[in-house]
Amino acid sequence: MFAVTERETLRGVGEFGLIEELKKIANTGVRTLVGIGDDAAVIESPREDRLLLFTTDMLVEGTHFDLARATPYQVGWKAIGCSLSDIAAMGGTPVAAVVSLGAPAGCAVAFCRELYRGINDLARRFGCDIAGGDTVGTPGGLILSVAMLGEVERAHLVRRSGARPGDGAWVTGSLGGALAGTHLSFIPRIEEARFLVAHAPVTAMMDLSDGLGSDLYRMAGASGVGFRIEAGMIPIDRAAVGRVGPRDALRHALYDGEDFELLFTASPSCDERSLAAEFSKSFTCGITRIGTVIERGGGIVLAGDGGETPLDEGGFSHYGTR
Amino acid sequence: MFAVTERETLRGVGEFGLIEELKKIANTGVRTLVGIGDDAAVIESPREDRLLLFTTDMLVEGTHFDLARATPYQVGWKAIGCSLSDIAAMGGTPVAAVVSLGAPAGCAVAFCRELYRGINDLARRFGCDIAGGDTVGTPGGLILSVAMLGEVERAHLVRRSGARPGDGAWVTGSLGGALAGTHLSFIPRIEEARFLVAHAPVTAMMDLSDGLGSDLYRMAGASGVGFRIEAGMIPIDRAAVGRVGPRDALRHALYDGEDFELLFTASPSCDERSLAAEFSKSFTCGITRIGTVIERGGGIVLAGDGGETPLDEGGFSHYGTR
Repeated sequence: MFAVTERETLRGVGEFGLIEELKKIANTGVRTLVGIGDDAAVIESPREDRLLLFTTDMLVEGTHFDLARATPYQVGWKAIGCSLSDIAAMGGTPVAAVVSLGAPAGCAVAFCRELYRGINDLARRFGCDIAGGDTVGTPGGLILSVAMLGEVERAHLVRRSGARPGDGAWVTGSLGGALAGTHLSFIPRIEEARFLVAHAPVTAMMDLSDGLGSDLYRMAGASGVGFRIEAGMIPIDRAAVGRVGPRDALRHALYDGEDFELLFTASPSCDERSLAAEFSKSFTCGITRIGTVIERGGGIVLAGDGGETPLDEGGFSHYGTR
Repeated sequence: MFAVTERETLRGVGEFGLIEELKKIANTGVRTLVGIGDDAAVIESPREDRLLLFTTDMLVEGTHFDLARATPYQVGWKAIGCSLSDIAAMGGTPVAAVVSLGAPAGCAVAFCRELYRGINDLARRFGCDIAGGDTVGTPGGLILSVAMLGEVERAHLVRRSGARPGDGAWVTGSLGGALAGTHLSFIPRIEEARFLVAHAPVTAMMDLSDGLGSDLYRMAGASGVGFRIEAGMIPIDRAAVGRVGPRDALRHALYDGEDFELLFTASPSCDERSLAAEFSKSFTCGITRIGTVIERGGGIVLAGDGGETPLDEGGFSHYGTR
């Protein structure tokens, strides 16, 4: 029924090609203010000064985790962490989540218990209820799907699309640490994001899940801008530098993904020194300005010792292409 | 790490055993009024006279559908239909859904398009936005996960737990039709449920997804009651009777599951004749009183030609046990 050429498969169009196709079909009514394409959907709330946030993440064994390298507790932690990170990226706070678990019949109950302990421990930390879910049998491996409801004050909502030329480009924390296992125990930047939307002129924000290289392209596309990134300013995870040296660590920081840090832009009105100082009083991860938003025609360039070079998109993509 | 005896696997404890385990772990805060165990979770809304509903369903190839027997359009329809049916069961209306799709890289884009057409066509019918989702690669078959946000007036919320001895037990439509393929094209009973919560003294409600036999046990457990069901009153799908004869069709109606009709109870104050007549003016599916809620100690009995017999629980269960 669907005999097709390679070009007409998911591998052919890539993850973002598929998303574009699905956007064309999706019905978005008046209550959905932001639909497919941002970290979370934004829906009108029954209360006028608030908005609802709605996001989902699916984790599949063999794609997102390997049970030889991750404990079930870590897999659960990561699953709920991805959705919490999406809520953070919109400037919001989580309210409740539903969790679906697909597992083969021979799976140990103790294994599922550990998985849910990981989910609940991280959710509790941010006041997020586990309100329900679904449990199903699978013929193959483990599948975890989390959907999360959050909320944000209308005045604090931040999208990917608000970056303007001249804005500073910033990241929280350090990048490339997934190499050293940080993607299994990361703390979503909910509190950091709440601080930023309240204290800084943040114009756009997203979480770094696919890798800075790829995610800069996503924000640039949504905002209709370019970026000039200073290679030397990118904060690289120390453990990653220790393992592979500074040059390779930069590559990991740009392309590995799953950092779950925030990428944000702040308007030129930002008092940068004071913002970084105030941020550091409340949080240990720090924030770093890594470059500047430029005109779209300037593309996305990496500035370093050898001058400016176009940044390769790279990054993780499902179906092996983008 | 999790070498266990058969009794300690999901097959050993069954689907409902697993859910009981997970309930113990789940953190439910003050905003979640109804957590794990009903058709949908109930969460405080920012508006005092409303409540938010939150539900999720995961469909896995080989467990919930077989692509040799169902078109991708039907699979999409069924996936969103399950969640719409959960919202109906609480007396609510849908607001928005997020959809996660796991598919292998060789999957045709046209296939995904058909799947989403099925999802969107049914969602649009009930004013439900498709607000976002996730797309991931899988090493094996297809996985669809839908999470849905709905709302209900506080006065109209119906749970599984409100049935009282003396109440009438009712179902919408007819049962057993999955045999003839109705589970791939069913219309969730959203409008019917809205009518019932507004016009009848409904005390408990749920959707029939696992089969009347099994689902009666779920409602009885939640309400702390028993049921006396008249075998001869159960409305059986005509196509099913035509295929396998009346006796076997009754078995299918009790145990096949995936009818997605409503099971509800109404207090003795209900003017039954007038309710059924008014209902029939608005809807073609009809409602049928199939029995009476009795004391818990009476168990769940099926009354027929041969007197009363305890109803076997049966019904579909993941992991091959319950």
